[in-house]
Amino acid sequence: MQNTLDGLVGAALAEDAGQGDITTLATVPADARCEAQLVAKQAGVLSGMEAFQRTFELLDADVRDWNARFDGERFEEGDLLATFSAKTRATLTGERVGMNFVQHLSGIATLTAAFVAALEGLPCRILDTRKTTPLLRRLERAAVAHGGGTNHRFNLGDGILIKDNHIVAAGGVKRAVKAARAGAHHMMRVEVEVTTLEGFMEAVRGGAEIVLLDNMDLTTMEQAVESRNKYAPDTVLEASGNATLDRVRAIAETGVDFISVGALTHSAPAADLSLRIANA
Amino acid sequence: MQNTLDGLVGAALAEDAGQGDITTLATVPADARCEAQLVAKQAGVLSGMEAFQRTFELLDADVRDWNARFDGERFEEGDLLATFSAKTRATLTGERVGMNFVQHLSGIATLTAAFVAALEGLPCRILDTRKTTPLLRRLERAAVAHGGGTNHRFNLGDGILIKDNHIVAAGGVKRAVKAARAGAHHMMRVEVEVTTLEGFMEAVRGGAEIVLLDNMDLTTMEQAVESRNKYAPDTVLEASGNATLDRVRAIAETGVDFISVGALTHSAPAADLSLRIANA
Amino acid sequence: MQNTLDGLVGAALAEDAGQGDITTLATVPADARCEAQLVAKQAGVLSGMEAFQRTFELLDADVRDWNARFDGERFEEGDLLATFSAKTRATLTGERVGMNFVQHLSGIATLTAAFVAALEGLPCRILDTRKTTPLLRRLERAAVAHGGGTNHRFNLGDGILIKDNHIVAAGGVKRAVKAARAGAHHMMRVEVEVTTLEGFMEAVRGGAEIVLLDNMDLTTMEQAVESRNKYAPDTVLEASGNATLDRVRAIAETGVDFISVGALTHSAPAADLSLRIANA
Amino acid sequence: MQNTLDGLVGAALAEDAGQGDITTLATVPADARCEAQLVAKQAGVLSGMEAFQRTFELLDADVRDWNARFDGERFEEGDLLATFSAKTRATLTGERVGMNFVQHLSGIATLTAAFVAALEGLPCRILDTRKTTPLLRRLERAAVAHGGGTNHRFNLGDGILIKDNHIVAAGGVKRAVKAARAGAHHMMRVEVEVTTLEGFMEAVRGGAEIVLLDNMDLTTMEQAVESRNKYAPDTVLEASGNATLDRVRAIAETGVDFISVGALTHSAPAADLSLRIANA
Amino acid sequence: MQNTLDGLVGAALAEDAGQGDITTLATVPADARCEAQLVAKQAGVLSGMEAFQRTFELLDADVRDWNARFDGERFEEGDLLATFSAKTRATLTGERVGMNFVQHLSGIATLTAAFVAALEGLPCRILDTRKTTPLLRRLERAAVAHGGGTNHRFNLGDGILIKDNHIVAAGGVKRAVKAARAGAHHMMRVEVEVTTLEGFMEAVRGGAEIVLLDNMDLTTMEQAVESRNKYAPDTVLEASGNATLDRVRAIAETGVDFISVGALTHSAPAADLSLRIANA
Amino acid sequence: MQNTLDGLVGAALAEDAGQGDITTLATVPADARCEAQLVAKQAGVLSGMEAFQRTFELLDADVRDWNARFDGERFEEGDLLATFSAKTRATLTGERVGMNFVQHLSGIATLTAAFVAALEGLPCRILDTRKTTPLLRRLERAAVAHGGGTNHRFNLGDGILIKDNHIVAAGGVKRAVKAARAGAHHMMRVEVEVTTLEGFMEAVRGGAEIVLLDNMDLTTMEQAVESRNKYAPDTVLEASGNATLDRVRAIAETGVDFISVGALTHSAPAADLSLRIANA
Repeated sequence: MQNTLDGLVGAALAEDAGQGDITTLATVPADARCEAQLVAKQAGVLSGMEAFQRTFELLDADVRDWNARFDGERFEEGDLLATFSAKTRATLTGERVGMNFVQHLSGIATLTAAFVAALEGLPCRILDTRKTTPLLRRLERAAVAHGGGTNHRFNLGDGILIKDNHIVAAGGVKRAVKAARAGAHHMMRVEVEVTTLEGFMEAVRGGAEIVLLDNMDLTTMEQAVESRNKYAPDTVLEASGNATLDRVRAIAETGVDFISVGALTHSAPAADLSLRIANA
Repeated sequence: MQNTLDGLVGAALAEDAGQGDITTLATVPADARCEAQLVAKQAGVLSGMEAFQRTFELLDADVRDWNARFDGERFEEGDLLATFSAKTRATLTGERVGMNFVQHLSGIATLTAAFVAALEGLPCRILDTRKTTPLLRRLERAAVAHGGGTNHRFNLGDGILIKDNHIVAAGGVKRAVKAARAGAHHMMRVEVEVTTLEGFMEAVRGGAEIVLLDNMDLTTMEQAVESRNKYAPDTVLEASGNATLDRVRAIAETGVDFISVGALTHSAPAADLSLRIANA
Repeated sequence: MQNTLDGLVGAALAEDAGQGDITTLATVPADARCEAQLVAKQAGVLSGMEAFQRTFELLDADVRDWNARFDGERFEEGDLLATFSAKTRATLTGERVGMNFVQHLSGIATLTAAFVAALEGLPCRILDTRKTTPLLRRLERAAVAHGGGTNHRFNLGDGILIKDNHIVAAGGVKRAVKAARAGAHHMMRVEVEVTTLEGFMEAVRGGAEIVLLDNMDLTTMEQAVESRNKYAPDTVLEASGNATLDRVRAIAETGVDFISVGALTHSAPAADLSLRIANA
Repeated sequence: MQNTLDGLVGAALAEDAGQGDITTLATVPADARCEAQLVAKQAGVLSGMEAFQRTFELLDADVRDWNARFDGERFEEGDLLATFSAKTRATLTGERVGMNFVQHLSGIATLTAAFVAALEGLPCRILDTRKTTPLLRRLERAAVAHGGGTNHRFNLGDGILIKDNHIVAAGGVKRAVKAARAGAHHMMRVEVEVTTLEGFMEAVRGGAEIVLLDNMDLTTMEQAVESRNKYAPDTVLEASGNATLDRVRAIAETGVDFISVGALTHSAPAADLSLRIANA
Repeated sequence: MQNTLDGLVGAALAEDAGQGDITTLATVPADARCEAQLVAKQAGVLSGMEAFQRTFELLDADVRDWNARFDGERFEEGDLLATFSAKTRATLTGERVGMNFVQHLSGIATLTAAFVAALEGLPCRILDTRKTTPLLRRLERAAVAHGGGTNHRFNLGDGILIKDNHIVAAGGVKRAVKAARAGAHHMMRVEVEVTTLEGFMEAVRGGAEIVLLDNMDLTTMEQAVESRNKYAPDTVLEASGNATLDRVRAIAETGVDFISVGALTHSAPAADLSLRIANA
Repeated sequence: MQNTLDGLVGAALAEDAGQGDITTLATVPADARCEAQLVAKQAGVLSGMEAFQRTFELLDADVRDWNARFDGERFEEGDLLATFSAKTRATLTGERVGMNFVQHLSGIATLTAAFVAALEGLPCRILDTRKTTPLLRRLERAAVAHGGGTNHRFNLGDGILIKDNHIVAAGGVKRAVKAARAGAHHMMRVEVEVTTLEGFMEAVRGGAEIVLLDNMDLTTMEQAVESRNKYAPDTVLEASGNATLDRVRAIAETGVDFISVGALTHSAPAADLSLRIANA
């Protein structure tokens, strides 16, 4: 919902404003207006445009001539991503917050797009993880989607993922799967994380509908795919662990259906964008 | 204050919990306990330990045997950073949130330490910027300090930084400085951003106590330092723009007092840490 | 998490306290204590005990000798459900709020138990719906579980349920199912609501993993079950609409797997419970 | 105030939306519009129309052609209670929340109207109680008024009601009344709850301006009314306890001025209403 | 309730702390403790001690040796009002906020006590008004009570006060009184504000139970009292307007029951108190 | 930011509204409109006009013909400060809250103006302090500015002020100044509070850029000024303590640069303003 985004942007503005932008208030007349241009200083994929826009709109009810590219669009160095006119005060005061959102999120979309491109022609898809920045998960997941990635479960409450500790505590895979099913509603599938081929077979026999192959080497993953194809063709396979840009295509070529990549959201560098402001 | 950190950690837990960790609730008995170890999988500098700790304490009032290294300490690959015992449910449910905090913040501290190390032996200091992740500024600034960096102004309300648009709007540097001083309390110094040598001299003549040399090449910065030493020895010089690890020592050798580096907070990759959980 | 319940109870106390319980503050000494007993005036199933308890604990940090039956337990008329001693002021001020919680939620658990009892010996299960009281969904769902019912999806974000309007908008069942799958994570199953036998077959062919038979007569439901058994044995069947206590067993006997009952949460009368307070 | 209602509706929407209505977002185009009709499937009295309306308006700033009956109006089975057109997404996403409000509140108004009708021709009035659903008191009281009932005190802070425990703690009725008067402002009347005829006379002598006859049988109530008429004609009499629809007229005929009925708000079944949505 | 006070004190601390007490954090070791003494530098009446205490307790969970006088007690210049020991950081950081509360509120209690003293021996009582500082009404009303004053209605929702504009809008006093009674619960008395003798008689005839004589001269007030005594002995009389310390006894001597004084809360100078801190 | 003011005004309205303005709702038709005039009953300086205006606008989206004087303007007794038309209900319900803001804040502006006038012709300026009413600091500081005063630091986080306890804890002035500088950003000046001439010289030698002369007699202040002029001409001098209207000019004549006056915000009597409402 709209007001959630506004709540987030408003909190970011409050964080950055403190008692008010004393420099701008002192030097810029209240009624001065300016033209602003968001410019790309590198190639990439756009994300965060709505947060960027709302930043200025929350500070100035009269932002005009808004013209912007859409989230998910590719851009080249030098491209104009957005132009608008607004009160100069609002523009200067909001600049850093708006840029923090759009640079961070476009950085994630851009890195995701690189991973997706590395799999070109293969049926395998890139997934995000819960390794997101605290309080920004919704926006960061959207950024992954803008970059062409696929979203994993949103949080601990809307998907079942059984890991080793759960299995030990429950007394075996079969028991863990059964307990998880009973504790969730009937619209959820059960995913089990394994690290060995034996674990994989146990998970399938235990009732896993999706199996997460964690930190396996390529050979083991190939064997898991082969077993899946032979014994449990409906089982979905997801790979995780050490999925760098260099290595991701090789992982996909083992035949897994999904590869989840924590770096998309926890280590993407900010996109290099710049805001040019011209006093009107 | 303590409750601010708790508020942040609590919001992150709520974001990740949704309607509850259905997998853990279904598979792990309510009274089961476990031992947990936070382990480094790379060398670095620690930050975010308090957020990490509070994550588990908010979920379990009876966390025991807490033993942890301090924020700001260096660690090597394989080092044990924290150990504790807690309810297994709390540990599994809090794992991702606690790790998201400590990995993100230790990533910032580690990158900062690399920049600080690059200036070894020089009087110049590394500053952070307002290019922080929305809602995490306080923690990210602390991480910069843990890495040996120095904090810039917290927000728009507690420091005066006059940029080009302010100068144009106010009708010249002198007027902008005077207006800013009148609009702020008497305990603040005035900083002016310039991009040319002429701008630098105007700023000094206009009353700037600190001058920010933005995106200047090394030769121009050297000339600015020379002018400062001759005509305005009390003026503090800060450099910004394009301060990569490769280039930062050369910038410092021009004689500037501070170098501000946006990448510390907007592009630091997460530190590679891992949580090992052993059912008790 | 604990603090969510406390937040809810605290808001209910604020709603009922206004500027303070002027009667009690004026007539009861600050240090007076009393004994309180929660007594059943009808048979039923308990729910809401934690909210009841927290009501008094939020008003008095020194509630003593707490002794209570557990949520989910059956009780008879005259049974003692909880006893405790506390400050008289806290007990009188909190009485109404605590009772409002435990009577409302025990009413839901009691009605649910009646529906569950009506299906005794059949494999069919009773589901709740999203027809809950605004802001009380979490507690009301727990009450359904305490009464022996099964929870449906929590909200619009953690389950896919495709209804007629979605199908028309998407251009057919097949398209709607495909679009829904693409928009959700890979851990969710897809449910489709139908009202006719033709609709049922289309849903199955379109890829529905669960089919909701809405407002069908018994004969049509039987035919749907028969078709499912023959052509799509893995498909789960849920029935909804007009499931009164009189009629619910007949519905279950058609062979559907689940029956969802809105009345559990929107029309359960409050359980008749009473709080006896004896000045100590 | 308007924003309080919006806050409540917004919280209910957030509770029901979770991470977003994934079914509707995936299947319905963003710009599709539809016509919606709120239809009565039983006779009753309307309440909650504003909450119903705000639900859709919070999700869609462009709801059009709003046409609705007013709170407090009677309706028959088959009546059209509201029609509007809106974005299809907003309509489908808001449907359950809007219906939860209007069905719950119309249920209360409808039950209240039945109690009021049972007293036709008598001067006695039906009162609500503080036995309301946590967080919904304001709306539920309004629903009682829409049904023709009269509101009792809003909360513990805006009316004095002295019960047995207060009397014992204060050392007698007279002391309790005096203390309560001193603790409240001079614009409040004092009400005392009694269960016997002796208690009634003591209350009157003690200064009660209103006496609540709790759980008395009809004969005792008649005697209390007689005493009131003779000795304390200005004293107002309220009856409470076991006031079912069957019995309420007999209670009123004893001559009491008010009868308070907890069931109005704690046990009213939801009104049977339905939302028809036609894709435009 | 306790948590309301904590909420208020916490908000005041946040307002005063900004990003943290940089002076104290930099100069005072984290484990240093100190002794603090709250000393009166004038005579007066104490109020706000709980807010003062909570200020330090919210900053330091280990405040020790708390010893303080009670709200409502008179003190002389030089008196020790409170002593405690705490962390030096917490004491220095909380000092201003704690003092702002206790000085402001003791100022109100002290001014109130002066008004009450001026009426010594007369049956008339001093009332506060709704002319309070935004967000501090609850504490300021308590301060009035500590000074010996009596509280008027808390807000617009818990008392009926009909003014000239209401009378005109309703079409006469009688109609206004009747409408107000119907709109409020049966536990409220109706007060009507008048400015003339004619208005007074109309109000009485219209059913006012309390009459507010606003801005009348002493002679007119005497006549109103005389009329009251003769024609409506149960009617309560309140005087307002221009009730200075010099004039308040003369007003009381007219025979009115209450005098309301806005200055108690809107114009009381802060009490002159001082906090002495001795490093331990 | 606008929404902060609205948040504050909204909270004040909620505090004063309780469950709603029952008198006005009962007596005034929903569509009645009125004309309102804010009139000065004393001379003074205006402040708080925006809070006054927002009070009515939050209650009525259709306030018309707004015409008001600006904050900071002087007014005479009898002057019209604002006129507007609005719904009668909104005007009557908002009256007290709007008046509480504008009277309180204009009282502060008016008292400040008196202090500023007392220094006419001298280069010394009047400062406010942190002795503000909890939660109103931002508005009260604005009021001081409207009265011609100058604002001191906003809170503990945006200025360094070293007091005696800090000096003792840090082990001397020099150490305290050094520590404070290291703990703050490079855009802040350091202020040190002293009470003696010796303290003053130590502070200067220790690196203080501003010295606060607390509670000194006039002779000592003159000597401090003399020393400053001779030895540390760039050092700024601020005086505090006992700065009454009678004495403030004498303090300024010693040559200090600033005088801080707590009474501006903690003891200013409310301005005498009145709202005339004429039913339209």
